[in-house]
Amino acid sequence: MDNSFVLRGGIAFSESANRITTYYRGYVVCIDGICKGAFHDLPDQYKGLQLYDYGERIIIPGMTDLHVHAPQYTFRGIGMDAELLDWLSTYTFPEEAKYGNMEYAKKAYQYFTDDMRRCFSTRAVVFATLHNEATIELMNQLEDTGIVTYVGKVNMDRNGGDNLQEDSAEESLKATKEWLDAIEGKYVNTKPILTPRFIPSCSDELMKGLGKLAKERDLRIQSHLSENHSEIEWVKELVPESTCYANAYEMFDTMGTPERPTIMAHCVHSDDRELEILKNHGAFIAHCADSNMNLTSGIAPVRKFLDAGIDVGLGTDVAAGSSMNLVKTMLITLQASKMYYRLVDTNVKPLTFEEVFFMATLGGGKYFGNVGTFKEGYEFDAIVVDDSKMYSMRDMSIRERIERMCYNDADALIKDKFVKGKKVYSRVE
Amino acid sequence: MDNSFVLRGGIAFSESANRITTYYRGYVVCIDGICKGAFHDLPDQYKGLQLYDYGERIIIPGMTDLHVHAPQYTFRGIGMDAELLDWLSTYTFPEEAKYGNMEYAKKAYQYFTDDMRRCFSTRAVVFATLHNEATIELMNQLEDTGIVTYVGKVNMDRNGGDNLQEDSAEESLKATKEWLDAIEGKYVNTKPILTPRFIPSCSDELMKGLGKLAKERDLRIQSHLSENHSEIEWVKELVPESTCYANAYEMFDTMGTPERPTIMAHCVHSDDRELEILKNHGAFIAHCADSNMNLTSGIAPVRKFLDAGIDVGLGTDVAAGSSMNLVKTMLITLQASKMYYRLVDTNVKPLTFEEVFFMATLGGGKYFGNVGTFKEGYEFDAIVVDDSKMYSMRDMSIRERIERMCYNDADALIKDKFVKGKKVYSRVE
Repeated sequence: MDNSFVLRGGIAFSESANRITTYYRGYVVCIDGICKGAFHDLPDQYKGLQLYDYGERIIIPGMTDLHVHAPQYTFRGIGMDAELLDWLSTYTFPEEAKYGNMEYAKKAYQYFTDDMRRCFSTRAVVFATLHNEATIELMNQLEDTGIVTYVGKVNMDRNGGDNLQEDSAEESLKATKEWLDAIEGKYVNTKPILTPRFIPSCSDELMKGLGKLAKERDLRIQSHLSENHSEIEWVKELVPESTCYANAYEMFDTMGTPERPTIMAHCVHSDDRELEILKNHGAFIAHCADSNMNLTSGIAPVRKFLDAGIDVGLGTDVAAGSSMNLVKTMLITLQASKMYYRLVDTNVKPLTFEEVFFMATLGGGKYFGNVGTFKEGYEFDAIVVDDSKMYSMRDMSIRERIERMCYNDADALIKDKFVKGKKVYSRVE
Repeated sequence: MDNSFVLRGGIAFSESANRITTYYRGYVVCIDGICKGAFHDLPDQYKGLQLYDYGERIIIPGMTDLHVHAPQYTFRGIGMDAELLDWLSTYTFPEEAKYGNMEYAKKAYQYFTDDMRRCFSTRAVVFATLHNEATIELMNQLEDTGIVTYVGKVNMDRNGGDNLQEDSAEESLKATKEWLDAIEGKYVNTKPILTPRFIPSCSDELMKGLGKLAKERDLRIQSHLSENHSEIEWVKELVPESTCYANAYEMFDTMGTPERPTIMAHCVHSDDRELEILKNHGAFIAHCADSNMNLTSGIAPVRKFLDAGIDVGLGTDVAAGSSMNLVKTMLITLQASKMYYRLVDTNVKPLTFEEVFFMATLGGGKYFGNVGTFKEGYEFDAIVVDDSKMYSMRDMSIRERIERMCYNDADALIKDKFVKGKKVYSRVE
């Protein structure tokens, strides 16, 4: 199968945040890895291409996981009775410390990448650990999957405890540059991203150094923002001259620009002032509803992000989120937004299914350029979904079936997965 | 396989709401369908029994679904942008009306019972529709599964629209008696339960008649209580002399007694006065967190129910809940309780995993008698779970593995399922 072809099946993709276009037994065309559009009837000029007919199966754009911690994958789903700071010190930091051992890292990252290959994500923005060698191992493995990622060696020079902390800002910056040099030109699909864990893990000096490095080397940055009340209080103490958490990042020149947008995960407790900072810098928000409920952080006001014109995608945030399945994350995102409306502010209308599907595909995909839909000119990322195990008495529309898929992720099986026109996974029946 | 045997594997069961007992490679003994206890080492007197060794698999008690609508199963997962009353009139009532057609009912109920057989529930309390013949068909099918259920022919003599309403209270009561007479003595595992849909669907006369019938024939009752704000307002209008929604049921003598406890689904907005009524009558609450988030109803204060000493189990409430998988419902129950704590009242601590596991097994199981745990004298309902697809770097304890299962339901596969010592389902690998 070369990367010019036509797929036939039930087609669904976002036109915009409020509109999903569907075709029953439609066509989607890929030429040299680029989408040429989706059609009810196949245009004549594409009739010579190889056609793969998926029958009653559904074909949707690949999804983007804007925030996921690879080293946490192996302890997903346990310790969920804790809140953020306790959860980090009890479960996360001791686990991440193990990635200094390459034998451990190699095996553990294989579990992560194997499941990443099999899930709905065709793009992901990934936290590794502070260890250079293990981070490069992760990048090597991810490159092999064919999935397109940004991967960050984590920076942390304070508050990491005995085993998960770099000696100084200088050492952390030096290691970062060594990591960048080591992978220079090595990958097609795997890009580095600067990754200060969050303000409590990084001294002012380190943050400033990373801000400078980002500018010098034209690199993007990812981090965490306003996830949990105790965390926010701590940041106030650590950077007393900042006007808010987002401003602390801004002070250190780590909020990015529209050309190299920073991703901030969470923003659960971000107020209008923080949103304005995010907007001004062209930052993306990685909304992680599963994680935010599991760690009792709260519910992010996603409708306000959208209204403010801020780019928003979804993050699974494994392992505070328990699954890499973005379709399950969609369900939890919907439920969270309904509870925000019901319990916090009835002026903030719940997200619609259209909006959540958009965020999972085109909203997050935008971070990677023209990614996340079947419009002409977009990179061809696609998932073929087999929902034939979900019996129904009614002839469901494609729109109904993708909604049902999100509410019944366990029965929405991935048949094939394409990234940039290349089939990267096919389920063994 | 007769129904006296020993199972070996990782054992986990609730001792109480706050304590889960586990044995790594332990034993659980079944004699004539009754549990003789779980053990670290197999007592000598049971060594002659047939032993089934499940190796690294986990063995947990069967779960009880205290609230599920069988006829809604085939449209699960769609139309979830609506709230209760719109959802009922747009999706639910038109669908339920179709069960007047027996060909339709037979096929649709087969989808439901097939999936019920394959899910974590070994006990269920089920709403059918108002149609006698279809309800009997459902009961026949459920009897064949080996699962133990209560099934209710629904009563509704008002506000059902054109196609889903009985002509009068008298007609509804007459049909109910005919249904009861038709199934008298017919089943071992399938019991009838009186099922006034909710106050808006039942006239005062019908409610009174059902209260009387319950007493005369020693029958239990199930219904809905305080799910949604608009519904609660409507009940106030319909029964103006009631002091609250629960009192309306009480006035009609449908709140039951500890000997024949009524199940009330939801109680999202029940205040202390309602809880007192429920407690006084020995009623069970079916907590349906998935449904309550999907229909934007809110979050029930489950901690308050437990503190008040009210019996609480979990309900999937398909199709307002989208899945019959109680393990997934456990996850959503935990997330909902964390959001109640964070967003509504920080004096109401989130539910623990122990409490939610308890509600899914022993809490709901109590409705069926000695059901829902592996203590001596309990009916032997068990699920063998294969979680071997969830790779991990750590040697997880059984307690950690059952928590992980709840957060990753799609990878927690049911290997075998036993009800009252009989294997009712075995997954084809």
